[in-house]
Amino acid sequence: MTDSDSATYPKLPRNTVQRYGKPRGKYDCKTIHEIVNTTQVLHVSFPTSDPTDPFPAMIPMLGFMASFSSPDAPISEPLDLYLHGYISSRLMRLGKTSPTDEEEGLPLTVAATHLDGLVLALTPNHHSYNYRSAILHGYATPVEDADEKLWAMEKITNGVVDDRWANSRIPPTKTEMTSTQILRVRVVDASAKIRNGGPSDDRADMKNDELRAKTWIGVVPTWTAYGTPIESPENKVKKVPEHIAKFVKRENEVGEKTAVSAVKGE
Amino acid sequence: MTDSDSATYPKLPRNTVQRYGKPRGKYDCKTIHEIVNTTQVLHVSFPTSDPTDPFPAMIPMLGFMASFSSPDAPISEPLDLYLHGYISSRLMRLGKTSPTDEEEGLPLTVAATHLDGLVLALTPNHHSYNYRSAILHGYATPVEDADEKLWAMEKITNGVVDDRWANSRIPPTKTEMTSTQILRVRVVDASAKIRNGGPSDDRADMKNDELRAKTWIGVVPTWTAYGTPIESPENKVKKVPEHIAKFVKRENEVGEKTAVSAVKGE
Repeated sequence: MTDSDSATYPKLPRNTVQRYGKPRGKYDCKTIHEIVNTTQVLHVSFPTSDPTDPFPAMIPMLGFMASFSSPDAPISEPLDLYLHGYISSRLMRLGKTSPTDEEEGLPLTVAATHLDGLVLALTPNHHSYNYRSAILHGYATPVEDADEKLWAMEKITNGVVDDRWANSRIPPTKTEMTSTQILRVRVVDASAKIRNGGPSDDRADMKNDELRAKTWIGVVPTWTAYGTPIESPENKVKKVPEHIAKFVKRENEVGEKTAVSAVKGE
Repeated sequence: MTDSDSATYPKLPRNTVQRYGKPRGKYDCKTIHEIVNTTQVLHVSFPTSDPTDPFPAMIPMLGFMASFSSPDAPISEPLDLYLHGYISSRLMRLGKTSPTDEEEGLPLTVAATHLDGLVLALTPNHHSYNYRSAILHGYATPVEDADEKLWAMEKITNGVVDDRWANSRIPPTKTEMTSTQILRVRVVDASAKIRNGGPSDDRADMKNDELRAKTWIGVVPTWTAYGTPIESPENKVKKVPEHIAKFVKRENEVGEKTAVSAVKGE
């Protein structure tokens, strides 16, 4: 499937990607959802409940995009964002107590960012990063339905390591179910911004042979490395299980391949 | 120097780290500044100028903490945060046109997060991440002084790759100087949150021999990998220069070492 077959988010003034030169904004669900679902840590921002506090709150959280009502919906379709974080945080309290006037929920801004490479140009001004970044806006409400909560917990756990849910002690106890809070974010708009390729320098610098003879230009690809699993002193399973070993191997391969492909502009 | 020799940020309700069990909050400058200055992408959040827009704006940016008035100040002393991002963004406009009533500048919340490992426990509920995360609140104003701007550009460039500034075409041209905008953030409070160690499971699960016999527990360490530098087709320098090769080698070593040490709770 190509990105153009994907559903798209509305392009509003607040989520329109502004950039001179090469257009970098994307609004299709597939691109945006893939960035979110491959990012281990999301950054979630929201207005605080204290009107004298000028600073938005910001929390790193785990999240996963899926649809409870259409569990088989492909990533190119509209999906909800499910968030999990530290329970008694201000966010969860706000989600419970401060619906907006329209009772839509708590307005959240969510960022997911992959750094793919350091772009080293002739001049500091043209240094850049290769990256894939998504920003989503939506209204969050706590998930109250037990089936939906259990389903979201499984999605979020398997979003950390493939197939981890079935390879751990399930189902959660009653206490675990009540102490775990999950937010469902109804996404109202979103955008992605992608930069790839190599450095792009000014013509005057490119004609400067002396400069070019001494200044290396290119890209240092970057990705998230997953190291050899380190067992807990209490671990009783001799061999690292297949679901973990496979995950580590694949993430390292995909990470490197993605970063290297980005240099070629793929 | 230990963290306790460091200057500290004030502990206010909005930046006090809340967490049951083991205390994870840190308020010393050294811990917070080190997290920021080793993070390649910061997430910057701020209220939008549109009062009908409930969503805070969020932008991934580059930044570095240092002091222009005391350039030799150690990382354990109060420092300013210098930010660089896409110029004509809403942020830079806001920084120029919307000082708060007290003319202090634009209120920003800045997050810097390192993911150090995936903590795999017996039960999904006790799964966690090892991480180092910092949240800073401060007031941003554009840097107008040419000397300070040039100094900040050098700091930010060398924050991407050590010593890159002197190994590229400097000084910037007049056009580059005017087209580059740098924000100086006067930090008013900040906190860090650190999680390390292995999984910590409930007693009932730890006594469940059948569960323990089949459920691997431990940590998958993670860090940012820097790959083999890929030269641009226009590159004329045969060998990858020392400042890049050294940086790549060191970052990979430090990244892995930090993630592995975190598992031991160091």
